[in-house]
Order: sequence, then C-alpha cells, then structure tokens
Amino acid sequence: MKATIERATLLKSLGHVQSVVERRNTIPILSNVLLEAAADGTLKLMATDLDLQVVESVPVTVDQPGAITVSAHTLFDIVRKLPEGSQVSLSAADGKMLIVAGRARFNLQTLPRDDFPMIAEGDLPTSFELPAETLKQIIDKTRFAISTEETRYYLNGIFFHVADDVLKAAATDGHRLARVTVARPDGAEGMPDVIVPRKCVAELRKLLDEVDGSVQVSLSSTKIRFGLGTAVLTSKLIDGTFPDYNRVIPTANDKLLKIDPKSFMQGVDRVATIASEKTRAVKMALDRDKITLSVTSPENGTAAEEVPGEYTSPGFEIGFNARYLMDILAQIDGDLVEVHLADAAAPTLIRENDNAPALYVLMPMRV
Amino acid sequence: MKATIERATLLKSLGHVQSVVERRNTIPILSNVLLEAAADGTLKLMATDLDLQVVESVPVTVDQPGAITVSAHTLFDIVRKLPEGSQVSLSAADGKMLIVAGRARFNLQTLPRDDFPMIAEGDLPTSFELPAETLKQIIDKTRFAISTEETRYYLNGIFFHVADDVLKAAATDGHRLARVTVARPDGAEGMPDVIVPRKCVAELRKLLDEVDGSVQVSLSSTKIRFGLGTAVLTSKLIDGTFPDYNRVIPTANDKLLKIDPKSFMQGVDRVATIASEKTRAVKMALDRDKITLSVTSPENGTAAEEVPGEYTSPGFEIGFNARYLMDILAQIDGDLVEVHLADAAAPTLIRENDNAPALYVLMPMRV
Repeated sequence: MKATIERATLLKSLGHVQSVVERRNTIPILSNVLLEAAADGTLKLMATDLDLQVVESVPVTVDQPGAITVSAHTLFDIVRKLPEGSQVSLSAADGKMLIVAGRARFNLQTLPRDDFPMIAEGDLPTSFELPAETLKQIIDKTRFAISTEETRYYLNGIFFHVADDVLKAAATDGHRLARVTVARPDGAEGMPDVIVPRKCVAELRKLLDEVDGSVQVSLSSTKIRFGLGTAVLTSKLIDGTFPDYNRVIPTANDKLLKIDPKSFMQGVDRVATIASEKTRAVKMALDRDKITLSVTSPENGTAAEEVPGEYTSPGFEIGFNARYLMDILAQIDGDLVEVHLADAAAPTLIRENDNAPALYVLMPMRV
Repeated sequence: MKATIERATLLKSLGHVQSVVERRNTIPILSNVLLEAAADGTLKLMATDLDLQVVESVPVTVDQPGAITVSAHTLFDIVRKLPEGSQVSLSAADGKMLIVAGRARFNLQTLPRDDFPMIAEGDLPTSFELPAETLKQIIDKTRFAISTEETRYYLNGIFFHVADDVLKAAATDGHRLARVTVARPDGAEGMPDVIVPRKCVAELRKLLDEVDGSVQVSLSSTKIRFGLGTAVLTSKLIDGTFPDYNRVIPTANDKLLKIDPKSFMQGVDRVATIASEKTRAVKMALDRDKITLSVTSPENGTAAEEVPGEYTSPGFEIGFNARYLMDILAQIDGDLVEVHLADAAAPTLIRENDNAPALYVLMPMRV
C-alpha cells in the first residue's frame, strides 16, 4: 500500500474514527485503525470495538493499492502534530507502515488487515432517510435521560419505534423519561422496535455536526447502519426489551403551571447550590401565579427563591432532583414551558406545548 | 454586619481568595472565608490554609460594621450563579449569614470570626518594589522546574537570593534547573535567602494578571508578603536550604548549537509521540549544521526528524526527556536559542543568548 493525502483531510477522518477505538483493549488489533487504499483513489479508514464500527472514505492519491492496520491513537497524535498544509505519504512494507511528511519520518508497528474484525451487517430490510437536523434534535432531546446503570442494559440506549404514522424515540433511566415524536419517514413502516446503544448515539451525534441534508438509516432487528456523507456507522442493537413507557406518561394531571423555562432553571440552579451532592433535592411550593423554590441543608443552611408563573390550581408542595429538572428545562427552546402536575407523589409531565415534538416525564422526590 | 455590594465586584474578590481554600479540610473553619465590613466602607475578604493567607479589600456600602465567616466555595458558587448586575446584600445575625439578591435568599451556616486563624507576620525587615511584569516573567520562566517530590520539600518552591547587584530566582527538580536574574531592586540588599512555596507562587501568578505597576514585597527569613493593589498575599517560607545550584551550571561546555526554538520544539514533540510514557526519551544526533531527533519504541516503532541548525563542532549523540526539553524551549521568546553541550553525560546549558535574563540547565538521559 502507498498513498499520499493532505494532512487536514487525514486528520479529520482519523478524528471521526479514532473515538470509536477504546483506550484499553485486551485484543491488540482493536487498538488499530484499518487503512485500505483502493485503485480508484479512495482511502478507507475503519475502526471498531466489535459492537460499533465506523468507516470513512476519502479521496487520496493511490500509488499502490493495499491495506494495513496501525495504532489509531498513535496515528492520530502523529498527524495532529504534523505541520499544517503538509502532504502525508503512507506506505506499508515488511510489516511496518512508513509515514513521511516534511522532514519527519515514522515507522509504525502494524498488524495484518486480515485479522481486523468486521461487523457482519447481514440483511437490513428497513431503510429510510431522515433529515440530519431531525436526527440531531431527536438525540439532543433524549440522550440525557439514557440510563448508565449497566444492570439495566435495555435502558442503555435510545428506543426507536413506529406507531401509526409517527416515529418515536424514547430514553429513560427510571427517574425521568424523554420522548420525541416525528413524522414517520417513508420506508420506516413495519420496522422492528430497536434500542440504539449509548456509544453509537454519541458517535452519531458527533458525525451529524458535519452533515447537511439527509442521513440514510438501514436496520434489521439486530443491526443498524447510518450513512452520513463520507462516513458509515454500523452498530449492533441492544438485545433487550424496552419497557412499555407509555404507562408512565400521565394523562390526567389536572394542575397546570406555565412558566419561563430560563428563569425557572436559573432559580433551581441557584437554590440547588447548597443542596447535598447526594440527593440534589429541591422543593417547589406552588401558589397562585408564583412558585417558591427552596432547599434546606443541615450542613449549609437554607436557600429560597420565588419565580413568577401562571398557576391557578390549589397550592401544594412537590420535590424534584435539581439536576434532572434542569436537564429537561435546558431542552426547552421557547420562552414558556407547561408543567402538568397531579400531586407530590405522581409523575409530572413537562413539555413546551401539546404540539411540541418532545415530551418529558419526571418522577418527584420526597422532600 | 450588614453590607451591600455589586455582584461582579464580590465575585471577582471571592475568585481571588477562594482558591487558597483547600477543598478538604480537617479543621472546619479553614473551609470558610472571613468577611469583615468596616465603618469606612470597605469589605475585607480573607482566606487561609495556615501557610498562605490572602486578604482582599473592596469598597462596599456598609450599613453595620462587623465580621463573620462562611463557606468560601459555597459563597463563591452562589454569587457566581446570581444574575449579572444584581446588588448583593450580606447580613449576619444569630449565627447565620443572610444573602439576598433579587428574588433569591440564602441563609448560610457560619463560624465566629474569632476562631479564624491569622498568620502572624512578625517583623518583615526587607522591603522593596518589583514591577508586576518582572515578577510575572520570573515566575513564568522558572515555575515549571519546581519539584513536586514532597520528600525534597526544599525544592518545592522558587529560591530567591541576592548576589552583588542582582536578584536571582531559581527552581530545580534535580533533572532541570531554571534561573532568572534581574537587577537588584532598591531595598533588597542584605535580604535573607528565601524559598517561596509552590502554592504561593501559583496564587501570586493569578493575582498578577490583574495588576499593573508595581508589587510591594516585604519579607523576613520566615515570611513573605506581596502587596498587589487591593490584594495582600502572605505566605510562610519553606524552612530548608536550597542546594548550591551554581555548581551544576556548566561553564566550559564547548559545543554550541544555535537553532530555532520553535521548529526544534515541534520536532521534539512529533518524534516523542511514539516515546513510551515512562521515559519520554528523545535522542538527538548532532552533525554539521543539522540535528536528527529520533525515538525508538519497542511497542510503537521508530520516529525521526531532521531540524536545521548552526553547528560546527564534532558530531555526537545525546538523549533528553522530551517533556523537560519542550518545557524549556517553550520559554524562549526569540527565534534563536543557544544550546551549549559538552558530551552525552554532561549537563547542557540552554539560553537565548548570554545577555538573556533566563538560563536553563538540563541533565541528559542515557538513550
């Protein structure tokens, strides 16, 4: 293999693939990136952790087609430090890869391309397009609610499913739920329910920052593939059953608070300063057209702040985890949010309005 | 105590004092900041870790003089989150401090001011002024060489001493030495040799960013005080003997390399990418008017880069810790640095030229 590529192009592509590579690997080749130069003038860069695989294709000058694998993080660090604007020559021979740029030469250890594991995609019968902007919004408005508890592996991702003419994406950790509903794209009808793992979501979100237009989504019940311009991300899906989350979305909460999400969030943030790290509990006392946020901490003292809001139902008190409440409020773009409450023990529904694509459910805390 | 102060002023002052407060304290009051409002309309903020003390004075509206102590980090976090432009009212009563700003109210636990420890300065017979810019340069060009080995406590700071008509500042960790020489300020004659501890250096450097003009330095053989506008920093000195570092400054190194510090540093950085984390050893082969930097790593492979430079002495090879070499090169402002070498085992002298205030000595490594 021998190819020449501009430093900036190589750095960008390596940036896309190297974050899939875990820092610690028991299988040595998983630390490597596969470089494959084809006679048609493309260089394919591939990285995998056995569950998630990313392939990026870039145009290069290929003098000799071939393929080799080298340490992804080492190559990334080298290319990062090369002078801007330099041409990078990559050539493999005698079990080494020679990198030459300007006056610098590197001779890296390699492992053979045949040992590099590929994810067998199999048949991906469902296929549809989603605007990159829509996919970004789905991820941004749900990912914070993904559970990090490894024992509840079926909550460690975003759940996608179709219902009638909509595509729904949901994430929950048992304390809060986030759901986004968008129009069902053509081709998604009859798709299986799938849970896309957290790491795939994170890598996808990074790649989306550089994509305009549409993303090609193809999936089966075990694999999903995202085609994003020059990059293709393929992931195994979580083999589990997402709970029937519709049961926890309250439908009869009869107390409605309308409030500015920004001042609400800032008030919560301020009073939570003195909350104990462990519980982060904030009390919210609702009265006619105002709420009073408060925290009492045995070590630190007390904090209270009044925030104006539209509220006409009978007053009561309810407690929330400040972090969870702020995570949700940060997702509200408008200058009014609806908080639908029932009582101090019941799940609370939060959304911008009933036409908003996103909906959040937050469990209260005893305070 | 009752005082009113603008949020931005209070935040800035707390920013200056809170970093002296350690995150973990076995003595509760050391987590607190002392607030003292005087009838003349000044608020003094004081923090200490028993070795280092900072006092900041700011103008405020004082309704009732008095003093109290509250958690420094909690107060800082609260003030940070208050709305920009708000007026903050601070009042102490019944063992609590009430903070009111806009619609937010905080009632913090306090500890009595009488329990707050002060560093007794004693007599500080030596007193002189140093331009803030000079003090900044002294710190910037030496602090990277301060040892972090706690067993060699006498190296855990910057050593200041006068010799004839100059003031010298030196730091070393046994592997490298940095020394800056400046004209002796009036009043520094006869001053005792002092070692200013690392934490004092760090806090002083932060405060210097906001000072123009001069810094008032006063010291005895056990304490030092820096007066910087509204802030006064007082520190205990390290009670130890700094080694006679002049012995390690080579005077007869007969091989001179003149080189661009920037391309030298970038070359070292690049080849060091594949060096093992532990040794970070880079080999430097000197030939007529060029040097070749190289690294050989059993795990990663090899790297080499040629860098042009003026060199006419007999060729030889020498090894350095890449990190240490880069730390020194980063301090050279000009576009040429002099590297005075003797042989592969001898200390190497690095300086911009023989008029430069800063001088560096680097021990080689066997490679």
